[in-house]
Amino acid sequence: MRHPPEQVKIGLMGLGTVGSGVMRLLRDRGEELARRNGFTLSVQKILVRDPSKPRQVPVDRALLTTNPDDILDDPEIELVVEVMGAVEPTKSYVLRALGAKKSVVTANKEIMADHGEEVFAAAERNGVDIFFEGSVGGGIPVLRPLKESLAGNRIFRVTGIINGTTNYILTKMTQEGQTFQQALAEATRLGYAEPDPTADVEGYDAARKLAILSSIAYQARVQSRNVRTEGITRLTPTDIEYGKRRGWSLKLLAESSEHGGRVDAWVAPVFIDRNHPLAKVDDVLNAILVEGEGIGETMFYGRGAGSLPTGSAVLGDIIQAARNRRREVSFTTCTCFRDVTVGGPEESPARFYLRIEVEKRSGLPAEVVRSLERWGIGLERMDYRDLPPSRAEVVLVTQEAPESRARTAIEALGRAPWLVSMGMPIRVEAEEERAPAGESASGEKLERRVLAAGGR
Amino acid sequence: MRHPPEQVKIGLMGLGTVGSGVMRLLRDRGEELARRNGFTLSVQKILVRDPSKPRQVPVDRALLTTNPDDILDDPEIELVVEVMGAVEPTKSYVLRALGAKKSVVTANKEIMADHGEEVFAAAERNGVDIFFEGSVGGGIPVLRPLKESLAGNRIFRVTGIINGTTNYILTKMTQEGQTFQQALAEATRLGYAEPDPTADVEGYDAARKLAILSSIAYQARVQSRNVRTEGITRLTPTDIEYGKRRGWSLKLLAESSEHGGRVDAWVAPVFIDRNHPLAKVDDVLNAILVEGEGIGETMFYGRGAGSLPTGSAVLGDIIQAARNRRREVSFTTCTCFRDVTVGGPEESPARFYLRIEVEKRSGLPAEVVRSLERWGIGLERMDYRDLPPSRAEVVLVTQEAPESRARTAIEALGRAPWLVSMGMPIRVEAEEERAPAGESASGEKLERRVLAAGGR
Repeated sequence: MRHPPEQVKIGLMGLGTVGSGVMRLLRDRGEELARRNGFTLSVQKILVRDPSKPRQVPVDRALLTTNPDDILDDPEIELVVEVMGAVEPTKSYVLRALGAKKSVVTANKEIMADHGEEVFAAAERNGVDIFFEGSVGGGIPVLRPLKESLAGNRIFRVTGIINGTTNYILTKMTQEGQTFQQALAEATRLGYAEPDPTADVEGYDAARKLAILSSIAYQARVQSRNVRTEGITRLTPTDIEYGKRRGWSLKLLAESSEHGGRVDAWVAPVFIDRNHPLAKVDDVLNAILVEGEGIGETMFYGRGAGSLPTGSAVLGDIIQAARNRRREVSFTTCTCFRDVTVGGPEESPARFYLRIEVEKRSGLPAEVVRSLERWGIGLERMDYRDLPPSRAEVVLVTQEAPESRARTAIEALGRAPWLVSMGMPIRVEAEEERAPAGESASGEKLERRVLAAGGR
Repeated sequence: MRHPPEQVKIGLMGLGTVGSGVMRLLRDRGEELARRNGFTLSVQKILVRDPSKPRQVPVDRALLTTNPDDILDDPEIELVVEVMGAVEPTKSYVLRALGAKKSVVTANKEIMADHGEEVFAAAERNGVDIFFEGSVGGGIPVLRPLKESLAGNRIFRVTGIINGTTNYILTKMTQEGQTFQQALAEATRLGYAEPDPTADVEGYDAARKLAILSSIAYQARVQSRNVRTEGITRLTPTDIEYGKRRGWSLKLLAESSEHGGRVDAWVAPVFIDRNHPLAKVDDVLNAILVEGEGIGETMFYGRGAGSLPTGSAVLGDIIQAARNRRREVSFTTCTCFRDVTVGGPEESPARFYLRIEVEKRSGLPAEVVRSLERWGIGLERMDYRDLPPSRAEVVLVTQEAPESRARTAIEALGRAPWLVSMGMPIRVEAEEERAPAGESASGEKLERRVLAAGGR
């Protein structure tokens, strides 16, 4: 008879959505994993707030505790799995676990995005692992591939749809013409949005995940507070409809790029071409596009959240951490050794879509053109529509210019006396439209065209 | 001052496309990798056939050798990188390297698909690593994620576009209406196809990669000889055009699925829906869709071949193998412990597209319907077109039935006295077309419809 396999004893902190997924996968897959790895994964204690609460997965009540010390002070527990969320007291628990030479697996993006340095230092000092695949992209394996498989590349850009809630909302607005509020209400009803949706709809959640991705991609410390963030609350179905007619898709992108020691990092809604690899990533799905010198474009796509997908990522990490324990090695080293400046993409060239409402008066379209041209911003396209009795809607797409200058010009336009309202300026990354033969898209020509076409 | 970093000494076998990519990346990235990892990767010897041949990358001629013993017998070389291809003498070199307790990184799909057992056993016996990310999907990290990050899942299906040559050919046939021969000629001219394209166009290359993917996904031994393989040589632009009109995309898929101890594995051209995640994977790009219990659908997408992409995968493996050497561990264990039956998808339900040419005669469309119905195969759709003076073309799509029975019915149809020619039967995995209201798609109704519509 074979010896019973060794046990790796685990303390689980948190039994919410992700924790339940981990327990479910361990229950369904535990036997096969033991056969494959030569050791069993045994959950010894589970930290919960309320032991009497009904759970999404059957667990032995004797495992539940409300006292973190039952896990952190148990010398038999080699591995702490943190899926309780929030920064405190969670971070203290994580640091105590590492200090007690326990390896830690976490899905906590707040901690890893903004306190990674402290956590990594504690792991290295104690010779144990900290793994966090579940913190970005749910079930999609992306952090480990980025760190290991793509280690031979210089990565120069990462672009992701990494917040499922906002992607769901934008998909509904696009496919069904819903307003932001309608789509948010539906997302909330389906459990895709939190009761307080701020972190999702303002892009903060995506900014944290982008900080984690970028830190690994560029081997530099990128924190979420350095990520320039715009949300989706000011977008309208009218904007989306306009883009659709031009063959564009509106997505909340989280993007960073590195060049010459500078990292630009931002989260913002962007019009992309319908043939862009990310354009068809709909509903709550996530995808991360990585561009590197060796690999060209590589994309990772799948379910970015949810009990089993994120549970799967956490379990993958648990298995790696447990294997390392059995071999008494750890591979955790912080790879953020490069010194870079992190900021928004202020100086990079950008084009903007903008929809404004104006008072109807003589010579107006020309005045819009001139207002922008004062800042050197040309127009690629301008659509003028009468709104009787006394107003008009102007939709314009600027030519490429440094982003900060374009924004200054748009702000100035916002102060024009004839301006009634201004929508959110939206970056356009789709291909520039080819001007009809014999016509350039310069502001001057465009102005003449607009005037000829009925601008009064 | 810091101590100079340790060296990991490497023997490179082969300096073709992939070997040059590895050397180029090492040259460009070596310094940063050393800084990051704390050791340098130093190529000591390069095995080539002809040292005087001009190379795609500048290398020190003193490194070149034609004698494999210079690498295999050098006790200082810890890591052998095999990118010379073919099965012999390559496999003997790999086994000798492992026997000498050198870790091995290879991109050799022939060896890993069909001799994996022998190679794994040698690695395990000697406590060294064998890594082979470059053997599937070029620069796309897929094997390591499948083995590690997704280890907590039961994977039940893997579907890939994993041969760039055939994907390029099908893309040209689709977008430009080229024949197979025209598209192949262009692929050859661009260097995408080998002088002897058999392994690509007959699906053998995809079958090898599928065997490797499936072995990892199902933890079972799947060899390429167990993969049922159909190529693309008999496909015509007419077939593709027909599919396009129905909203389908024609792709050479490599697919395997596991259920109850049985693995179905096959490579074949398939019509998929234009909204399928793989439908937009064009040109030489590759993508692998993995379906598992926890993760749902996860897709990996990128450049499936080429000097730098595959070089990037090989370099990622080199770094991992070197890190393991530095820590004196190895993680190589063959995970193919599950006993499964591997075969084609004969008993799984399938629909087929089929184009035939027939002699024009009275009652013919009905005879086609009846011929298939004799085997219990119903029709979803039939298009009849006169080919004056004396022939007609019939394009049909069958209803779902066990594949083996559908094929038997199609073979019987092929023996009908009025049949002039028969194209390749193509599996249809796109959604079934909704029958117009009040009409079922049963063979009988369809027959009446066809007859009424002008079948003489």
